[in-house]
Amino acid sequence: MSFETVSQSRCFNGTQFVYRHASHETGTPMRLAAYVPPQAEHGKAPVVWFLSGLTCTEENFTVKAGAQRVAAELGLILIAPDTSPRGEGVPDDPEGAYDFGLGAGFYVDAIQEPWAKNYRMRSYIERELPALVAENLPADMGRQGIMGHSMGGHGALTIALRNPDRFRAVSAFAPIASPMNCPWGDKALSGYLGPDCSTWREYDACALIEDGARVRDLLVDQGAADSFLETQLKPELLEQACVRAGIPLTLRRQHGYDHSYFFIGSFIEDHLRWHAERLKA
Amino acid sequence: MSFETVSQSRCFNGTQFVYRHASHETGTPMRLAAYVPPQAEHGKAPVVWFLSGLTCTEENFTVKAGAQRVAAELGLILIAPDTSPRGEGVPDDPEGAYDFGLGAGFYVDAIQEPWAKNYRMRSYIERELPALVAENLPADMGRQGIMGHSMGGHGALTIALRNPDRFRAVSAFAPIASPMNCPWGDKALSGYLGPDCSTWREYDACALIEDGARVRDLLVDQGAADSFLETQLKPELLEQACVRAGIPLTLRRQHGYDHSYFFIGSFIEDHLRWHAERLKA
Repeated sequence: MSFETVSQSRCFNGTQFVYRHASHETGTPMRLAAYVPPQAEHGKAPVVWFLSGLTCTEENFTVKAGAQRVAAELGLILIAPDTSPRGEGVPDDPEGAYDFGLGAGFYVDAIQEPWAKNYRMRSYIERELPALVAENLPADMGRQGIMGHSMGGHGALTIALRNPDRFRAVSAFAPIASPMNCPWGDKALSGYLGPDCSTWREYDACALIEDGARVRDLLVDQGAADSFLETQLKPELLEQACVRAGIPLTLRRQHGYDHSYFFIGSFIEDHLRWHAERLKA
Repeated sequence: MSFETVSQSRCFNGTQFVYRHASHETGTPMRLAAYVPPQAEHGKAPVVWFLSGLTCTEENFTVKAGAQRVAAELGLILIAPDTSPRGEGVPDDPEGAYDFGLGAGFYVDAIQEPWAKNYRMRSYIERELPALVAENLPADMGRQGIMGHSMGGHGALTIALRNPDRFRAVSAFAPIASPMNCPWGDKALSGYLGPDCSTWREYDACALIEDGARVRDLLVDQGAADSFLETQLKPELLEQACVRAGIPLTLRRQHGYDHSYFFIGSFIEDHLRWHAERLKA
């Protein structure tokens, strides 16, 4: 299966691609953005995944974070997937809310109807898309890192915790630390998975850690002026879980920063260097 | 007259503002984006203006160029105005085209009806907005530079050429070098100014230089894969005018780059350093 190129632009001497492809997991066409650094002309490059937050597509991170400059220096491929299936026949939140359905896949495989057919973002990100990336890009799949923002921070943490052999590095910006313990997560997990909370635990970073999952270490930046901090994000829950499990967590509370891409852009360089150190070690 | 704050976000230890204010030149509310670097807490900072291209608002440069990182390092205030008046009662291109009317003010003072009342972007940028910036921000108005992209590159060049005492530095990304000699410019200048081409010359960088206007020096980046290069932008006309006038022009044709913000983002650091050198000299 080949990627179809939607657009490509030269950027910091590499190339920013937007691709489209048919997904058998979601049953829809899916888009992703891929930055290929100049070093990839001469050999395979490590891959860093960026999972985006509620309402986002593959575009937000790609045009707003300023990550390509650093990826070009460090020789990293950046992959930014979409956040949900989209298109004709894909069900959305009945009231069109921003926090469920389109743009809000929460990186789960839904088991409730009518979501189960299309909302398979876990399998899409964990299995289908990596195989396509390996096939279509000069990617060193033995060296992968993953990061994300908000809902995508939750995605990055849970995917890394469930796949410790695949990811050598993981970090997050303002992640939803425990979807089982906030309104966004409660709505998403009950909607996609149903009322049996035992099915929720593999989609909750804190529960995964409680249940024994481990990563080598973890970098999290959190804006101290983030309006979602206390009600939805709750980094203290992640901090407690990491302390109990002995996972070295670098949690930085950044004074004055909010939930926007101005926050991500301010610290993306630190995160990419964190990943590069671990991917090149 | 005070700016009303639409939004503010911490960014690279400074603050990215979006402001709204009533404009007497355009007769409408106008928005602008302003980045205030951390150095401005301790004293006035030099100002660099960025004028955007067709279809843009104050937002495009602000979220896509990655300029704040460098402005924070160099201690520069960045001002990104909108590209036209907007709102109820403001006339638009009769066919809704992207290259005239809303989002396409071309930095002129229109003298044709129905444009003359609102389309006064020259006076807005040259006179009204600088006074408001001086009043509302910690700006050192004795140290100003100006840059822009495409239509905004044309704006930056012509405004700098007409106001050599105000701007110590000027640069452009893929500017429309001579609106009198391309379809975009022909449509805009005939529409806003009417058929008498003698009124067009003060809005054409090459004609201004022919007529004696001067800047100390000039930096222009142009993507060699820009789809508008040959029909609309024509940097060779600016090159010829600068050679004849003895203006030192650094024109860099960047291999493989297109007209997008991926191009701007790749070279914004060079431009900001060019400005900082001249503003701090």
